[in-house]
Amino acid sequence: MTITSFHPPKRTLMGPGPSDVHPRITEALARPTIGHLDPEFIRMMDELKSLIQYAFKTSNRLTLPISAPGSAGMEACFANLIEEGDKVIVCINGVFGGRMKENVIRMGGTAITVDSHWGRAVDPKAVEETLNAHPDAKALAFVHAETSTGARSDAKTLCQLARKHNCLTIVDTVTSLAGSELEIDGWGVDAVYSGSQKCLSCVPGLSPISFSEAAVEKIQARKTPVRSWFLDMNLVMGYWFQDGRGNGKRTYHHTAPVNQLYALHEALCLLQEEGLDNSWQRHQLHHQALVAGLAAMGLEMLVPEEERLAQLNAVVIPEGVDDLAVRQQLLAEYNLEIGAGLGAFAGKVWRIGLMGYAANQTNVLNCLSALESALLRQGHRFTPGEAVKAAISVYQ
Amino acid sequence: MTITSFHPPKRTLMGPGPSDVHPRITEALARPTIGHLDPEFIRMMDELKSLIQYAFKTSNRLTLPISAPGSAGMEACFANLIEEGDKVIVCINGVFGGRMKENVIRMGGTAITVDSHWGRAVDPKAVEETLNAHPDAKALAFVHAETSTGARSDAKTLCQLARKHNCLTIVDTVTSLAGSELEIDGWGVDAVYSGSQKCLSCVPGLSPISFSEAAVEKIQARKTPVRSWFLDMNLVMGYWFQDGRGNGKRTYHHTAPVNQLYALHEALCLLQEEGLDNSWQRHQLHHQALVAGLAAMGLEMLVPEEERLAQLNAVVIPEGVDDLAVRQQLLAEYNLEIGAGLGAFAGKVWRIGLMGYAANQTNVLNCLSALESALLRQGHRFTPGEAVKAAISVYQ
Repeated sequence: MTITSFHPPKRTLMGPGPSDVHPRITEALARPTIGHLDPEFIRMMDELKSLIQYAFKTSNRLTLPISAPGSAGMEACFANLIEEGDKVIVCINGVFGGRMKENVIRMGGTAITVDSHWGRAVDPKAVEETLNAHPDAKALAFVHAETSTGARSDAKTLCQLARKHNCLTIVDTVTSLAGSELEIDGWGVDAVYSGSQKCLSCVPGLSPISFSEAAVEKIQARKTPVRSWFLDMNLVMGYWFQDGRGNGKRTYHHTAPVNQLYALHEALCLLQEEGLDNSWQRHQLHHQALVAGLAAMGLEMLVPEEERLAQLNAVVIPEGVDDLAVRQQLLAEYNLEIGAGLGAFAGKVWRIGLMGYAANQTNVLNCLSALESALLRQGHRFTPGEAVKAAISVYQ
Repeated sequence: MTITSFHPPKRTLMGPGPSDVHPRITEALARPTIGHLDPEFIRMMDELKSLIQYAFKTSNRLTLPISAPGSAGMEACFANLIEEGDKVIVCINGVFGGRMKENVIRMGGTAITVDSHWGRAVDPKAVEETLNAHPDAKALAFVHAETSTGARSDAKTLCQLARKHNCLTIVDTVTSLAGSELEIDGWGVDAVYSGSQKCLSCVPGLSPISFSEAAVEKIQARKTPVRSWFLDMNLVMGYWFQDGRGNGKRTYHHTAPVNQLYALHEALCLLQEEGLDNSWQRHQLHHQALVAGLAAMGLEMLVPEEERLAQLNAVVIPEGVDDLAVRQQLLAEYNLEIGAGLGAFAGKVWRIGLMGYAANQTNVLNCLSALESALLRQGHRFTPGEAVKAAISVYQ
């Protein structure tokens, strides 16, 4: 078999990520590759750290992108902070909380879970009870924005509780970064990771992370080596910081994904140009228009209004409507990708993303029109045309 | 501080990697991002597996790219194959053998090292003695092409020895893949990893890997979970193979680095067009021209001829010549990157890469001219013009 160049179709990405990539970012991605120890590259790395600090609202020194996707960012946090025997309280209100638990176990820790209803925020009362019941817990881990359900948890309150109980916090912000209010320093988050491919609208493959001083102290006081060489922050620091272990010189660790880092740099420049607050508000605006349109078609949201993420909208699939047929029609006829339900919600919800560059009026209106067409074909009953009208009224 | 878009200089990359990226590959990199579960993307993934099988000369079913750099590919091999208490014989003849040892330790294994002279191939006799002395060893690990020294070890013989002693083999081919003769099935390699950014001329950030049936059996028979969730092949397989754990359906694991995979696909298409044998021969030809030119300047190679890699040329820095000044001049005046020595060879050798797209006549002649100019400025004595002449005579 002779295999030839791959030419992907042009889609509109309104699933749970990756999201549509801004053209300035793909342009940056294709710039000439230079060496990962080139002085110009080193300068870019320094800028990148500042830009990630801006996005996270943190002055944490140990702030950098992990050279692998968000899942590796999650692993970097657990691998560095958790030692054999450490007790960690893990909040589970969707797929990614479950993955956190799995990470604790792989690192030899003990996971105490706080299970909240999928599709709802993590319950702070249940967390407080668990913290009281386990005074020896070392860390509290939770997902700020559950990509599997579209629920936003109250990170500020959860961090306050953890602090009161002398627990470090490990927070998943893969879907929230740049899309929802997020204050790493203001809320007292100790370890945070995110992904490049959601509200930053960069290509997938990188994971911005940040560790507080307390987290760095815990890493430096480890009694056993980090179980991962690739993700050992003691070594990663030597490459990203002149006064890491390199004694004034940066130490080679691994070959950085040079072009992807150009892309992330550009994505963060775009974020800085727009402004964090404006980015959060933009996501909110298009979310409101989308939800108004969905309501006009008689569709219900999975998550109660006060716990909803703007950037990930879990919509209940109406009775009698064929999940797969609808998604296939949207892809085939509109080149539009929306997400399927994950885990317990497979076949029960759609996940409509409004992330980064994809959070715009054209996408909202196109998505509503396309869904209208698909739902009419499925025999779902509603008044055609009302959805777009409802959305437009939000914009006016 | 306002940070603006980063515009890298255009370099010629003749260091230890990344190498110059083929324009068709950067073009592929910038194609529209699609979802990692899009049917078109899944089709591309299947092609990618075949293309990697071609490059490795293997029919191993478990052949795929890890979504992170070569260092993570190394870790994927050790994390999956080594369990607590496993004894592993690790050959060290440079920096990357040392990293293998570190990986064994992090996975809870015991590393028995076979130390060979840096700058030389791994000594098969010493390996055989160690295999005899440790009949309970589970695996033999070695680096095929030591990027830190430019030495090529006899992978075929080492694999035969391992097989005779019932050891699995873990082989680093980061620098050899597509640049040196390499036969995964023919030589009986059990676990192999490489990188995208050397002789494949793709952007850095991915690690093609492959596991033999015996390796897969060892992974499936593990008594303890793999210490890394991100690199657990049992889970990775569920995404890359329809009949992995997904029971006929692919299971989401992590968000694939979509655009990087486009680039790797294109890089491997280019390799298939040229043909593996032709690629190996091309590297050899330009290596001979380079070495002839270096000899004409009175420069010596670190590695004896029969153990030299074509794609990575470690050149001894002549007495009295300032390493850093030369490399800075090449970068500033010629936009030419060559590599510094690593570890024990820092300040003692340069590493001149001839990798993938960068292995061409123009680069060889430019590099020789630039080095001539830099060495003349350093007071090194030789007859100007002879280097290029010597190289050209190889091409004629």
